[in-house]
Amino acid sequence: MSMKYLKILLLCVPLSFIGEYLNWNATLVFFLTCVSIIPLAGYLGNATEDIAAYTGPKFGGFLNATFGNATELIISFFAIKAGLFDVVKASLAGSVLGNILLVLGCSIFIGGIKHKELKYDSQLGTFTATMLLFAVIGLSLPAVFTFNVSEKLISSEYESFSVITSIILLIIYVVGMIYSFKTQKDLYGVEHADDIDNRWSLPVSIIILGIATVLIAIESEILVSGIEPMTEAAGISRMFVGLILIPIVGNAAEHSTAVIMALKNKMDISIEIAVGSSLQIALFVIPVSVLLSLIYTPMSIIFKPIELFLIGASVLIANQVVKAGRSNWMEGLKLLSVYLIAAVGFFIVG
Amino acid sequence: MSMKYLKILLLCVPLSFIGEYLNWNATLVFFLTCVSIIPLAGYLGNATEDIAAYTGPKFGGFLNATFGNATELIISFFAIKAGLFDVVKASLAGSVLGNILLVLGCSIFIGGIKHKELKYDSQLGTFTATMLLFAVIGLSLPAVFTFNVSEKLISSEYESFSVITSIILLIIYVVGMIYSFKTQKDLYGVEHADDIDNRWSLPVSIIILGIATVLIAIESEILVSGIEPMTEAAGISRMFVGLILIPIVGNAAEHSTAVIMALKNKMDISIEIAVGSSLQIALFVIPVSVLLSLIYTPMSIIFKPIELFLIGASVLIANQVVKAGRSNWMEGLKLLSVYLIAAVGFFIVG
Amino acid sequence: MSMKYLKILLLCVPLSFIGEYLNWNATLVFFLTCVSIIPLAGYLGNATEDIAAYTGPKFGGFLNATFGNATELIISFFAIKAGLFDVVKASLAGSVLGNILLVLGCSIFIGGIKHKELKYDSQLGTFTATMLLFAVIGLSLPAVFTFNVSEKLISSEYESFSVITSIILLIIYVVGMIYSFKTQKDLYGVEHADDIDNRWSLPVSIIILGIATVLIAIESEILVSGIEPMTEAAGISRMFVGLILIPIVGNAAEHSTAVIMALKNKMDISIEIAVGSSLQIALFVIPVSVLLSLIYTPMSIIFKPIELFLIGASVLIANQVVKAGRSNWMEGLKLLSVYLIAAVGFFIVG
Repeated sequence: MSMKYLKILLLCVPLSFIGEYLNWNATLVFFLTCVSIIPLAGYLGNATEDIAAYTGPKFGGFLNATFGNATELIISFFAIKAGLFDVVKASLAGSVLGNILLVLGCSIFIGGIKHKELKYDSQLGTFTATMLLFAVIGLSLPAVFTFNVSEKLISSEYESFSVITSIILLIIYVVGMIYSFKTQKDLYGVEHADDIDNRWSLPVSIIILGIATVLIAIESEILVSGIEPMTEAAGISRMFVGLILIPIVGNAAEHSTAVIMALKNKMDISIEIAVGSSLQIALFVIPVSVLLSLIYTPMSIIFKPIELFLIGASVLIANQVVKAGRSNWMEGLKLLSVYLIAAVGFFIVG
Repeated sequence: MSMKYLKILLLCVPLSFIGEYLNWNATLVFFLTCVSIIPLAGYLGNATEDIAAYTGPKFGGFLNATFGNATELIISFFAIKAGLFDVVKASLAGSVLGNILLVLGCSIFIGGIKHKELKYDSQLGTFTATMLLFAVIGLSLPAVFTFNVSEKLISSEYESFSVITSIILLIIYVVGMIYSFKTQKDLYGVEHADDIDNRWSLPVSIIILGIATVLIAIESEILVSGIEPMTEAAGISRMFVGLILIPIVGNAAEHSTAVIMALKNKMDISIEIAVGSSLQIALFVIPVSVLLSLIYTPMSIIFKPIELFLIGASVLIANQVVKAGRSNWMEGLKLLSVYLIAAVGFFIVG
Repeated sequence: MSMKYLKILLLCVPLSFIGEYLNWNATLVFFLTCVSIIPLAGYLGNATEDIAAYTGPKFGGFLNATFGNATELIISFFAIKAGLFDVVKASLAGSVLGNILLVLGCSIFIGGIKHKELKYDSQLGTFTATMLLFAVIGLSLPAVFTFNVSEKLISSEYESFSVITSIILLIIYVVGMIYSFKTQKDLYGVEHADDIDNRWSLPVSIIILGIATVLIAIESEILVSGIEPMTEAAGISRMFVGLILIPIVGNAAEHSTAVIMALKNKMDISIEIAVGSSLQIALFVIPVSVLLSLIYTPMSIIFKPIELFLIGASVLIANQVVKAGRSNWMEGLKLLSVYLIAAVGFFIVG
């Protein structure tokens, strides 16, 4: 993605630190940390891709498969530490639907306005299609089990179930990764090295990766600590912050890359970014978050009905859009409309 | 559709007025108003199509897209005025599933018995397919948000959410209509001018449109006012009246046209009528009804789980039937069976 | 299926009788009856197929369509007699998902390891696909009606609804069977006579059918009477017994045949066995069980959300796997993972 615009946003990093230190207005500090994570996530992503390009496909694939959504994972970690389980889950569910409805929707809409009709490979390989279906079913199962169970009972009995489910999802993710390496299939679609416009040397990439990670960690801690004062001050629901705001921040880098690719009429790459990132959230970041929570207080893998409905609807839409093999701005507008209805719902209803 | 049989049913119009005036038995008057709306809806539809044919494709397309389900809209209006929100929503949900399960089911069943195998275009254009999916997701979202919310809270907070959702659905409907005009795609499938057997002059068409609309309005008001006394007298649930009886009355004209087309082995037109009408209900009549309700008491866009399940199931079936590209009476029987199970359910359970 | 291994398991038949008579440990007797039903179900299935081969396609098709899942029906009957409705429904839902997730999953996994890529007919005829969809919708409808109804009300009002729904499902099953006979389509995919390795004479087949049926009946009664003491003694939930254990026992014979076919790279037959058996459970065994319950206490056709979710998910997966036209061990692993998560859920949560 284009780094020049991102550099300006880096100014928000020191500003957010100062704001936090001087106890500025909670909403302003929250806004500053949000904005400062965007370029950091971009640098983290670019550094990961560069290192992957240097280390060869095998370790590179592993790097992309684990660090591809590192920002989401870091934010989750600090939100777990703070016990904000509803925000954690909302932000991860929001990341899946943000990737499909917002990122893919924007790509199709903007790309479609420029190039009347967008054409692309109509085969989202069987592999990815069943992987998406598997992810949706795997994530939904624990919630359906608790359908008629009171919320208090959920925490106790569902701990071991959540852990086992997470381990199974992770195993499938890892085995799938190895399988796709062996069969030369680009599984999670995170390779698009040809389209990276700036490239650093390996040592520089590693240093940037390190610095970006540390800064994202610090910003995430500030972000998370600011959620409660901010939501109270601004009268915004925590669900809206989790499902809409945080995913936009975490996905902004992928978002701009996907739209740029759509403008270049390379919709295949836009689709790969959106779908690949969704899969990674569902089968890697979510189970790892559940396992990480065991350090503090165990978090269940049980999502809310609205979260699962939106994930399921996104996957359905992604499947239909990809199978069609061509799209236009009207299709993009439909995806964005669903996202808008959901965003309005979380804003008003919470 | 064939007008000669409808003319006889027009006799019920004066009879229903007399019955209402003389306070005949509530069930009888309800039955008479139901029967009298059937030919009136047929005349309204034919007049609309004739005017559309005179005014050219642009204004004609607009006319079909707004007046195509005018009867449903008029009945909704009077039911909203009377505060019978459950009946309004039931009748609109019932119209979607009636169009697909009953109208399409009958067409396939009867057409399939005559012509062993029915073949048709296996591409329900991507446009219509994603439009149907969008409609189902858009209509379901508000309900999923209120999944765990008590029924009393729903009315207050969900008013603005319902209004915004309705406006978004309407925008997509209108933009989609304009888009399909520009790209020459027959969007909502309401054009089948070649198959209209009688044609009036433009002034006659306008006069018939006016008279039919006024008479439907009067009949609708009588119909709505009769729902409560009738359901109590006959021991029928309001859900059955809303989901089964009213949609049959409102859709009878399309129904007979679709079956006639299936008998002529023109299944493409039957499918267009059923699917196009469903889309129009979901993306035009439902949101307009929610907005109209603001005149009196605001009605939410939140449907019951059973209504959404049936709409979703109908759309799934419609997609599968159309994608197959050919059908036979056994397939039609399956659609009719689902409708029958639903009808029995509403009759017994309510 | 290969009979030689089954013969050894027959030893459990006398052992289970002795155990029951001498009041051995409940869990041990339960285990013995489970194991002894496996070979008996195998003999019952083989005898049915042999008789079907002798009597010609028409009566043979009828035999396969009714006796194909006789073991499940017999177990259901005794569980209904004992009033264990939750176990009955769980075991029937479990049979559907066991057939698809476990039987088909194992077949793809084991077959895929032997033959890198498994190819098969990518057309699960429209007939079977809409039949599966119809079965899922038909089975789900009664449950969705009772979404907001308290559990106590369900039993009374839903009796006639359950009976009518059952009759409609049965009619579709029977009409579909006749239709497929006439159009020469292999409807429920239970014909694979070429692959039977041992064949008895007609009288021997009938005698074996009779003996196997009687022994399964006796074992089923012991099995059902042992569920409560066993679940209490071993601390296993009844849902786990119903959804996981009993279907494994009832499907073991089909299971081994399907895997053997997959090893021979005849995935078409494996798919036919899994999908055909699922359809038979949904449209024949379940409605017949509801009707049989009228002899004792009427059982409703209302399934739990988790059961319907798993049936729906299984059908979705089955459709996707079959449509792909080829598969590999990784796909099989995904099916098995979903089954494993469900099994863990029922074991822990119950």
